[in-house]
Amino acid sequence: MFILSSPSGAGKTTIARRLLAEDGAIAMSVSVTTRPPRPGEVDGKDYHFVSEAAFHQMVGDGELLEWAEVFGNHYGTPKSHIKAGLKDGRDFLFDIDWQGTQQLYQRMEVDVVRVFLLPPSIAALEQRLRCRGTDSDAVIEGRMARARSEISHWDGYDFVVVNDDIDDCFEKVRTILNAERMRRARQTGLVDFTRDLMRP
Amino acid sequence: MFILSSPSGAGKTTIARRLLAEDGAIAMSVSVTTRPPRPGEVDGKDYHFVSEAAFHQMVGDGELLEWAEVFGNHYGTPKSHIKAGLKDGRDFLFDIDWQGTQQLYQRMEVDVVRVFLLPPSIAALEQRLRCRGTDSDAVIEGRMARARSEISHWDGYDFVVVNDDIDDCFEKVRTILNAERMRRARQTGLVDFTRDLMRP
Repeated sequence: MFILSSPSGAGKTTIARRLLAEDGAIAMSVSVTTRPPRPGEVDGKDYHFVSEAAFHQMVGDGELLEWAEVFGNHYGTPKSHIKAGLKDGRDFLFDIDWQGTQQLYQRMEVDVVRVFLLPPSIAALEQRLRCRGTDSDAVIEGRMARARSEISHWDGYDFVVVNDDIDDCFEKVRTILNAERMRRARQTGLVDFTRDLMRP
Repeated sequence: MFILSSPSGAGKTTIARRLLAEDGAIAMSVSVTTRPPRPGEVDGKDYHFVSEAAFHQMVGDGELLEWAEVFGNHYGTPKSHIKAGLKDGRDFLFDIDWQGTQQLYQRMEVDVVRVFLLPPSIAALEQRLRCRGTDSDAVIEGRMARARSEISHWDGYDFVVVNDDIDDCFEKVRTILNAERMRRARQTGLVDFTRDLMRP
């Protein structure tokens, strides 16, 4: 489970999309959310859009690996397809915040790599948030406050990458993913392979 | 401290040389040894060649980070220039066996990444040992026995890479090195950088 977190506007979504496009072995974990779709967002691809009632039902039934509330909306990760995919040796990409990361990490039975993206400066972050053009000043102010708060959790991650240049940042994130795949403990075939090598 | 171990003939020396040539931030840890120089080996570059007496003096004076005996010869890592280099933020490459790796790892004050290279098959390993052409059949037989014994310690490493193709293997080792440099705990500037980002 490969977790990518960052304050809003630090490039996480772009990096995540490129990773999914260029790496066939990783799939997106699609979250459920109670927030309304933004223009262009597709139900079942960007999010599973659900009602408050349906969300609370899922929490009650233990169907979410983690969940969090952001600006009055709820977000969560459904268990079922993740568990099935991991069994098949699939990697999953998580685009979640520090609260969700902590919840996932505290479940000891899951294997997690946590990557945090930082903006090169707070001015760059604000500019990126303004360029989206979809939000009012008040919303942007709220986002900046939230960004600072999100940044304060940088030390709860295994890796930190500063997104100074999007191509460079993407390469770094891909390097981390590929290296982590080479960890001994994640290569399930090695026990048999080394046994064959040592056979006299 | 980046440790590269493998059975003799699995390509470790080639990979180490390329890493040193293409990565300016890593330097070789030059070991001391009591074994006689092979043709072409340079004192102070490949090894520091010392007498048995001088070696035991270094052990006694606590000047070695780790040491081991292989085929009656002694090998060890001198402390002094490693400690100075690490302080300056330099990375060090170690071309040592599993015994040395264990000794280094057990020193809790050092920061170690352990990579083990495996041959694609035992036949490929034997062929590589024969191609060197410098050793008798008896020595090669000894090496093969030692290779099997070395391979049996594969599970004492953080990463395992199968050297099926030397270019591919090199890229994988470089990927691991670059990813490990992005670990939060190794980026000493992040405390100040994030403090600046969060300043209102």
